[in-house]
Amino acid sequence: MELLNNHRSIRKYLQKEIAKGILHEILESGIRASNTGNMQLYSVIVTRDSRRKRLLAPFHFNQPMVLEAPVLLTICFDINRFYKWCLVSNAVADYKNLLWLLTGTIDASIFAQNICIAAENQGLGICYLGTTLYNAPEISTILNLPVGVLPITALTIGYPEIIPEQTDRLPLGAVVHYEKYTDYTESSIKEIYRVKENLEVSIKYMDENGKENLANVYTEVRYKEADSIYFSNKLKKMLIDQGFNLD
Amino acid sequence: MELLNNHRSIRKYLQKEIAKGILHEILESGIRASNTGNMQLYSVIVTRDSRRKRLLAPFHFNQPMVLEAPVLLTICFDINRFYKWCLVSNAVADYKNLLWLLTGTIDASIFAQNICIAAENQGLGICYLGTTLYNAPEISTILNLPVGVLPITALTIGYPEIIPEQTDRLPLGAVVHYEKYTDYTESSIKEIYRVKENLEVSIKYMDENGKENLANVYTEVRYKEADSIYFSNKLKKMLIDQGFNLD
Repeated sequence: MELLNNHRSIRKYLQKEIAKGILHEILESGIRASNTGNMQLYSVIVTRDSRRKRLLAPFHFNQPMVLEAPVLLTICFDINRFYKWCLVSNAVADYKNLLWLLTGTIDASIFAQNICIAAENQGLGICYLGTTLYNAPEISTILNLPVGVLPITALTIGYPEIIPEQTDRLPLGAVVHYEKYTDYTESSIKEIYRVKENLEVSIKYMDENGKENLANVYTEVRYKEADSIYFSNKLKKMLIDQGFNLD
Repeated sequence: MELLNNHRSIRKYLQKEIAKGILHEILESGIRASNTGNMQLYSVIVTRDSRRKRLLAPFHFNQPMVLEAPVLLTICFDINRFYKWCLVSNAVADYKNLLWLLTGTIDASIFAQNICIAAENQGLGICYLGTTLYNAPEISTILNLPVGVLPITALTIGYPEIIPEQTDRLPLGAVVHYEKYTDYTESSIKEIYRVKENLEVSIKYMDENGKENLANVYTEVRYKEADSIYFSNKLKKMLIDQGFNLD
């Protein structure tokens, strides 16, 4: 499917607004996505105000596109709305557990991806911001999110100024298993990653960071274990403070 | 976007195979989706074998479509492949924490949704199986999933025999917030859910289950808190046994 196959993350945007009607259409396509029990356990916060973008930017590691894109969408898992409905209906249930956190995260992600595809179909470009989960507590404060609403990802959206080359992917066979999972051997892993490791961009990464191979760039530069533990603990504390039962 | 806006979950399929080339194209569109750091922390298991479908069916609550659809795709968060790559590269990092569990779940969900849209674009129908997380340990055993591979959702895929009416959605304004989250009041909640509560299908649900309102059908019949705690604990135990640090 050409629209999906041509996807690139867009990080440079034209200074051109997104018309209200177009944004509305895109979001309407978002809510048509499948979701668990039709409970719609998600919300989206639309940020256009540049003052609020400046408040959010540091928590997205000051990536320039946060300020430059005309629209920033913060996608949230939202159990608050459902709880409020239960409250006015004399219905009682507490789903603040790991199962529902994952279920709601899946639903919110599927909602987000429909938004992305509808946006790209309108000639817009998008980029996901993985920083959202790292700084969920601070982002929640800025966006006034109540208990039970967790920002899981964010999207910059706008008309592309620069359309980059497509990034590589592992060969399809590396991620598809037939009938049962065939675990990777030393030689199959080397074969799967061979092309990626020899890309010009990978070699540049290794040189710039003085690392002897690409895996080391990931573990020692881009995604350090200590950082992941730090941000994971921050996230866990936020959820426990909100009454989630995770342990 | 018409393709997205016309989405229905398909639960009755024609007895017609999906050609290998078409499945291949669909999965290729899947891996073009955005993902964190281009690490592709997901895998998919393709089930066509009816013997294996019969093994899986009870863990999807024996929904007939699991046996009837020509293809069942089990979508997994997969940190195993990345770890194996690190191992052969003398790179060391352990990301088995809540942050990465959620990050990988988002990536795998976005991958799944691209697969769904590419499938629908080929005239196929899909249905997500939320039961996957409920019975992740048993499904993992049947599919031979190693440590670090968690089935997060599954998809039945096939040519539709019956295309049902579209299900309702809350008004768009109920899930979209501008600049900051506006929490719901008693009256705004009642207004948001009014149409849904008065749908024929909702009244049928209430009558069949002897419940006085729709929220009670959710909390007392469809998604009981006790069930959610039971399945959540089972999932948590599996992850902790695999070395995830969740508490």
